[in-house]
Amino acid sequence: MIKTLRRYLPILDWGRSYDRGALSNDLVAAVVVTIMLIPQSLAYALLAGLPPEAGIYASILPIMLYAIFGSSRTLAVGPVAVVSLLTASAIGQVAEQGTAGYAVAALTLAFLSGAFLLLMGVLRLGFMANFLSHPVIAGFITASGILIATSQVKHLLGIDAQGHTLPEMLGGLWANLGDTNAITLGIGLVATVFLFWVRKHLKPALRRLGLPPFAADIVTKAGPVAAVVATTLAVWGLGLTERGVGIVGAVPQSLPPFTLPGLTPDLVGALMVPAILISVIGFVESVSVAQTLAAKKRQRIDPDQELIGLGAANLGAAFTGGLPVTGGFARSVVNSDAGAETPAAGIYTAIGLAVAAVALTPLVYYLPTATLAATIIVAVLSLVDLSILKKTWGYSRTDFIAVAATILLTLGLGVEVGVASGVAISVLLHLYKTSRPHVAEVGLVPETQHFRNIHRHKVQTDPSLVTLRVDESLYFVNARFLEDLIQKRVTEGTTIRNVVLMCSAVNEVDFSALESLEAINRRLGDMGVGLHLSEVKGPVMDRLKRSHFIDDLNGRVFLSQYDAWRALSPGAA
Amino acid sequence: MIKTLRRYLPILDWGRSYDRGALSNDLVAAVVVTIMLIPQSLAYALLAGLPPEAGIYASILPIMLYAIFGSSRTLAVGPVAVVSLLTASAIGQVAEQGTAGYAVAALTLAFLSGAFLLLMGVLRLGFMANFLSHPVIAGFITASGILIATSQVKHLLGIDAQGHTLPEMLGGLWANLGDTNAITLGIGLVATVFLFWVRKHLKPALRRLGLPPFAADIVTKAGPVAAVVATTLAVWGLGLTERGVGIVGAVPQSLPPFTLPGLTPDLVGALMVPAILISVIGFVESVSVAQTLAAKKRQRIDPDQELIGLGAANLGAAFTGGLPVTGGFARSVVNSDAGAETPAAGIYTAIGLAVAAVALTPLVYYLPTATLAATIIVAVLSLVDLSILKKTWGYSRTDFIAVAATILLTLGLGVEVGVASGVAISVLLHLYKTSRPHVAEVGLVPETQHFRNIHRHKVQTDPSLVTLRVDESLYFVNARFLEDLIQKRVTEGTTIRNVVLMCSAVNEVDFSALESLEAINRRLGDMGVGLHLSEVKGPVMDRLKRSHFIDDLNGRVFLSQYDAWRALSPGAA
Repeated sequence: MIKTLRRYLPILDWGRSYDRGALSNDLVAAVVVTIMLIPQSLAYALLAGLPPEAGIYASILPIMLYAIFGSSRTLAVGPVAVVSLLTASAIGQVAEQGTAGYAVAALTLAFLSGAFLLLMGVLRLGFMANFLSHPVIAGFITASGILIATSQVKHLLGIDAQGHTLPEMLGGLWANLGDTNAITLGIGLVATVFLFWVRKHLKPALRRLGLPPFAADIVTKAGPVAAVVATTLAVWGLGLTERGVGIVGAVPQSLPPFTLPGLTPDLVGALMVPAILISVIGFVESVSVAQTLAAKKRQRIDPDQELIGLGAANLGAAFTGGLPVTGGFARSVVNSDAGAETPAAGIYTAIGLAVAAVALTPLVYYLPTATLAATIIVAVLSLVDLSILKKTWGYSRTDFIAVAATILLTLGLGVEVGVASGVAISVLLHLYKTSRPHVAEVGLVPETQHFRNIHRHKVQTDPSLVTLRVDESLYFVNARFLEDLIQKRVTEGTTIRNVVLMCSAVNEVDFSALESLEAINRRLGDMGVGLHLSEVKGPVMDRLKRSHFIDDLNGRVFLSQYDAWRALSPGAA
Repeated sequence: MIKTLRRYLPILDWGRSYDRGALSNDLVAAVVVTIMLIPQSLAYALLAGLPPEAGIYASILPIMLYAIFGSSRTLAVGPVAVVSLLTASAIGQVAEQGTAGYAVAALTLAFLSGAFLLLMGVLRLGFMANFLSHPVIAGFITASGILIATSQVKHLLGIDAQGHTLPEMLGGLWANLGDTNAITLGIGLVATVFLFWVRKHLKPALRRLGLPPFAADIVTKAGPVAAVVATTLAVWGLGLTERGVGIVGAVPQSLPPFTLPGLTPDLVGALMVPAILISVIGFVESVSVAQTLAAKKRQRIDPDQELIGLGAANLGAAFTGGLPVTGGFARSVVNSDAGAETPAAGIYTAIGLAVAAVALTPLVYYLPTATLAATIIVAVLSLVDLSILKKTWGYSRTDFIAVAATILLTLGLGVEVGVASGVAISVLLHLYKTSRPHVAEVGLVPETQHFRNIHRHKVQTDPSLVTLRVDESLYFVNARFLEDLIQKRVTEGTTIRNVVLMCSAVNEVDFSALESLEAINRRLGDMGVGLHLSEVKGPVMDRLKRSHFIDDLNGRVFLSQYDAWRALSPGAA
């Protein structure tokens, strides 16, 4: 009972040994992360097409719930760029941006996503996330970064443009380019350049000025806040709203409200698939971050418990006016680097953001959306990494195809189609590769008991004996291939009296392959050719023995290939 | 040039050596198959919801085209039960049965299916059919047999009932049971019992009466014709149409007409997916039959050329008032058993059916549909084989799940959903199995150079050295599993200084797995633990060398596990 509780509530583990040292470290980290999260939360709400306060709300209760249920010590949960983009794409299909229905749809999406994650966690299905290959994830993240950055250009220009694919976005920008507001563009460009400079050069500069590393780090992380403050003051002081500069405007000054997600069958039906997609992608991103951070401290995370933690966080977002959330890369690294020792740091961050929601929201009234767009652009361009194309090209063409297809389809047809096709393509490519396994015809290396490919090595062979080493598990995708291959090889050589399948690399024989082996056995039997197996692995042999195959086999099963050679090659003895 | 022609036109091969002996054998086979095909063609057109002549037309030009392009010597092409069922299900969604649009949709389906098969053939994509596992095919065929038999019960009862799933069909039958026509039911039951008796007992009875085997065979195959003749005469002689017995009615007396499939974007869009499904299933059924028959005669078929042959046959059906066709099991076996030597037998069969279309169609006016339903029921019940459930249960639970799910989903949700889910489930189960590969920790068998599982054998181990043999290719689905596993093993044992991955069963390392290996290498390096590889296969090593992994590896690559042991175990030397 206690054990079950502790499994599902990691807080019971770390909470018991919580001390003053951990408290002060966690508090410092929480202050740093809070400062970073205020502009980020507003920006990612904007990216999702939601009112800015939704981003703040999504960073309060969800963080607390993750702190209770999550298994990572330093993961920081909240709205993140890719998930916000997916959110915008999903709810844009069911409601008009700016309407009440749009905000409700965001809650529904968070609710469905939370429920799905919880279910996966309880069923311990965390491994499903592995069906997303690294090339697909890398391609998807890169393409998403490009899409997100492009989607923010309209705010830099102060124009209107819609679309969920790159051609749509570029078309919209091009069509409305004439409406560009010069002042907005000026603010946006200055903010963008400033933020790039902060990211690249501020920390070394501060270090040269003699600041200790930790202080230099905090000042650097506060860069976006400086941009926010400076541009807000400029808009307010110079009365730039009169000149057409878009601002955040009135943000309600309150703690997160209690909200109910819409659960009509129509809405649930329309958002179910996107919710699953968001859950899986959010989970994969979050687990990668959490694993990386945990490994650095020789800790481990539990993927199934992570599902529960993220599920609880999303349910929290659904009932407090938020949007779908997950563990963010940048904020988690900051949290970890700033010294967070336990998830309590997250709870303090949540408290900090609650204070901000109540006390600081009037201050962002004059904050230009161009500044928020600049913070998003600078943040996501670090996600764009086209070098993955080069790396995979050098290593494996199939992986390259998976990356390239995922990038092109995500840019061209949108995030949902892109990632779904990426997964399908990588699975199909894998099946394709295993459908034509490497099969080596082997012979005896003279004076040894080793057998090697007859086309690569000088080996002894026997015209009456063909030994084929199959370098792949035998299963439905390649079962017929093997049938064809053996049929072909045996009809070629009229002197063949025995065929040995060397199974040292066969890790599985499924029912389809079993039936193929039976067919091969029958056909070879009809031709008067013996079929033998050698070096069959224990688990494979255990399974074969459950069928009639071994009894019906017209040849024998040899423990080692050398035994087979000695028994079947007339000249061997 | 000639070689290419001969590759695409197998008729050039067998045609050159065609002689009198082959001619007379082929003629005999053609007569037997023609007699068998007349009732079958009518019946399968009925099953597809089409006028009876469509079945005859679909057996004329398509057979001829297959004879020219197909690679099997004895495959008999035409409408078959499962494909007709799929046809009914597909075109039932776009047009009302009995309308002109329905017949046009059948032509469109045949056209799209033919085009798709041709395309696959030219692109040499025949291997794609292997993605259908044997359990999925077996489950699908069995469920289809049950669905087809159930769909014909309404004709036996003389009532109306619609539906494409078992619950729908049973519901429809139950609702209209009160309308049962007793005479129709009588004819249907007599015909069914007679046909079952013919199938099971006539041949042995004839042999006991002294008939030679071949004659007994032909008489048995003509059983359905006898049922057709007897019941037709009964209906005509006793004036049973007045008593409400459903009959085939007027069938146009003509050669196949020239028809054009409808190619409006709407129709093509609606039928594209069903056409692909029908193509793949028809192809798989056809190739299985063709391979079985070819193997008996030590011949080979070329799956890619089969695609072209079947594609041409379906295009032929589309332009001559037919419906989708494929190679049928029963008729091909009859053709082969009756002595067909070359595809010319198919051409003679087509001529026979053309004669029938012109001369015999008036004779089937009074043929009761109940008799046709009986021939279908008797034919398809031989497809139903529930023993596959027991066989797979004994051999492998995952294969059992695939069969059971395919059967249940096909019966409950229809043929298209059933087979598509079957494929998806078998792929997911395969991925699931390989996502948690068997990993054995191995030690040295004393006095040898062999390494075996430490939990199964008495072996030497070394507390500073962990050797893991991974019995699976490393790819995206199990990449993270390996990371977790090694991380866990190393955090457990504080004395560990070296980890060796023994790769004798690793047939592939994809890019995702490469990145995981890099992550493992980095993390172990951070902990001061060496990562080594042993027994890496040639192709895998070639690929690894294209990346930085081998350079960055903090340990070494050993040719054999014994080398690794000697180098890393302090006590070994």
